[in-house]
Amino acid sequence: MFQPAYLDHNATTPLDPAVLAAMLPWLESQYGNASSRHEYGRRARQAIDEARQQVAAAVNAHPTEVVFTSGGSEANNLFLKGAAAAMKPGVLAVSAVEHPCIIKPAAQLARQGWEVRSLAVDAAGSLNLADYAEALLARPKLISVMTANNETGVIQDIAALANAAKAGGGWFHSDAVQALGKLPLDFRALNAAGVHALTLSAHKAYGPKGAAALVLDKRVELQPLIAGGGHERGLRSGTENVPAIVGFGCAAELAAQRVAELSARLRAMQAKLEAGLAGLGARIFAVEAKRLPNTSYFAFPDIDGETLVGKLDRAGFAVASGAACSSANPEPSHVLRAMGVAPEIARGAVRISLGAGNTETEIEQFINALQATVGRLQGLTAIAV
Amino acid sequence: MFQPAYLDHNATTPLDPAVLAAMLPWLESQYGNASSRHEYGRRARQAIDEARQQVAAAVNAHPTEVVFTSGGSEANNLFLKGAAAAMKPGVLAVSAVEHPCIIKPAAQLARQGWEVRSLAVDAAGSLNLADYAEALLARPKLISVMTANNETGVIQDIAALANAAKAGGGWFHSDAVQALGKLPLDFRALNAAGVHALTLSAHKAYGPKGAAALVLDKRVELQPLIAGGGHERGLRSGTENVPAIVGFGCAAELAAQRVAELSARLRAMQAKLEAGLAGLGARIFAVEAKRLPNTSYFAFPDIDGETLVGKLDRAGFAVASGAACSSANPEPSHVLRAMGVAPEIARGAVRISLGAGNTETEIEQFINALQATVGRLQGLTAIAV
Ligand SMILES: Cc1ncc(COP(=O)(O)O)c(C=O)c1O
Ligand SMILES: Cc1ncc(COP(=O)(O)O)c(C=O)c1O
Repeated sequence: MFQPAYLDHNATTPLDPAVLAAMLPWLESQYGNASSRHEYGRRARQAIDEARQQVAAAVNAHPTEVVFTSGGSEANNLFLKGAAAAMKPGVLAVSAVEHPCIIKPAAQLARQGWEVRSLAVDAAGSLNLADYAEALLARPKLISVMTANNETGVIQDIAALANAAKAGGGWFHSDAVQALGKLPLDFRALNAAGVHALTLSAHKAYGPKGAAALVLDKRVELQPLIAGGGHERGLRSGTENVPAIVGFGCAAELAAQRVAELSARLRAMQAKLEAGLAGLGARIFAVEAKRLPNTSYFAFPDIDGETLVGKLDRAGFAVASGAACSSANPEPSHVLRAMGVAPEIARGAVRISLGAGNTETEIEQFINALQATVGRLQGLTAIAV
Repeated sequence: MFQPAYLDHNATTPLDPAVLAAMLPWLESQYGNASSRHEYGRRARQAIDEARQQVAAAVNAHPTEVVFTSGGSEANNLFLKGAAAAMKPGVLAVSAVEHPCIIKPAAQLARQGWEVRSLAVDAAGSLNLADYAEALLARPKLISVMTANNETGVIQDIAALANAAKAGGGWFHSDAVQALGKLPLDFRALNAAGVHALTLSAHKAYGPKGAAALVLDKRVELQPLIAGGGHERGLRSGTENVPAIVGFGCAAELAAQRVAELSARLRAMQAKLEAGLAGLGARIFAVEAKRLPNTSYFAFPDIDGETLVGKLDRAGFAVASGAACSSANPEPSHVLRAMGVAPEIARGAVRISLGAGNTETEIEQFINALQATVGRLQGLTAIAV
């Protein structure tokens, strides 16, 4: 089967072969329920314990701080709604560029009496610190600012933001789904700075779909979203997805081992890609900000992003337009809107997100294909005008 | 590695080899995010669409009625909390023998102003119809009664119960997690009788952990538990677990194809097992009720269930004591308590749940091992007394 060049790693990543190998026994002969008190159950429980240690070690947390969930969306919802349910309604502050799985639960909480404050970003996508300082005066009980943005790749200075919020006494959460494996993550240090919870998701870091974690300071009281048998210290019930959790453990360990080497390699490919994009006259979003080493978000004047993605797909390159990871959503990206990008430019947005398997050759081939495609589309536009 | 005889299929089941084969491509080269609009994404979307059709067909529902979740616990919580969040608090009726993932969310709703009514069962574990009729007078807005109980195997007459509740206008849900593959399920017919939602879970029917479904009458308005990108018609956001959903589709199809043959085979093994148990002097719970063909729940006087399970484990038989599927829970089963079984007898409870891979020979070997073990333990008890 034809396999296009995959340049969409922020949407999801292939399984690392070592991760799949680690998972297979748990899909084959070792199928026990980790709550069962017999040989099959004990083996499954041990595998989960080990994976919990691997995930904890990868982000310098304690294993008891790792709450496994089925995905990043669940972990984000668990933090926001779980913490909110354990308090009286108050102010909730989330950045304007969060993933929908933070923005939507915040909107649900707004309907339950919470006052939701959207934290502004500047034109480069970094948090607007004056607006943030003002928001802190309202003493938000819950704050959520992502570590790195899935569209632009912009990295926020979570430690500094959390530190500034410390005096207010609220809980500070960060969605680190796009950071795992691309940036070093140190929950102990972040926690000391005032970060109380981090969301991780295996499938964004060469691990399987179906496993993720909320890494949680145990002082934070949470009501479970999924209540039942009392798994995950009562914070997330349901038969554990043993193969996926084992895969997550393996992927997290690899992510931590490889982050320095991989991010340097990605950074070099990103530079090459962006030189090519600039040469073709693309506008690259958030170039002024600190960004992930793998993410390039750009637009060409008068070229629709969806159309470009479709043409590139047919040319053998899998890339994303506007916001990925979410279902059919034809509006221009809320992230670019928050950065003040005009809708007609935002509609042109295309995202390349590189990964461990990409090569410099693919970058060259991509730039060539892009040049040809953009040339044709601009010709068409010229004719249409 | 030593593989004990697995007699604990109500806790979880092995993957059917055909299910694993169906999943593998999605774990290997076909890793796309089903929301991505490129070749990888389209293939993943198509695979999910096909799995949705398979699950729907297996229970005679329409594909648009299938809402995929990560597990049965999530689906049960989604129904109860999701429906409750779309209404003003009222009366919620759940049977006393539900799985904790119904009982616990009901208790959470009680703290939010819902009046929770526990529906009594008789000594055989069937719903007490007089108590049910009385509960209906309170016009519950939400009713949840399981199709088959995970501990006793007792089957409730869901269609009749839903029909009786019809005039009240509430939503009727049934946890059918233990029914899939063991009983025929016809959502169309149940829906006509007044059942508005069914919970299914792949890993209880030779499918993978990490995929399950709420089969839902579209008139039921639900607030999502996991809000975000808008997946699953906005009812359950998060990157779809493509391999697990594909596996669920395959398992559901197999379940429907095999249910008549498998349940007859299980029924024959169950009869043989229970003849053996009776011969050893065991008390079998709920024998008077209509039960699943694979479940036998029993106790021996003066023998602790946990102890017996431990001895049988060392003898090479994986069986469950008291309630399975839930984390460390040393109290006697709430199901047996609801049936009026004395705590000292309930503490002896051991559950055998047979599956497709079991053989008559295993039943014979199990009965022999049980005889030896019980004999030794009764000897010890006699000495201790
Ligand atoms: C920044 C960010 N947060 C959260 C999520 C949701 O994670 P998941 O897909 O594991 O639910 C995604 C991607 O989908 C993401 O990019
Ligand atoms: C009757 C019943 N309902 C719900 C569940 C929960 O399903 P899951 O383990 O998929 O969360 C189980 C088993 O765990 C069960 O036996």
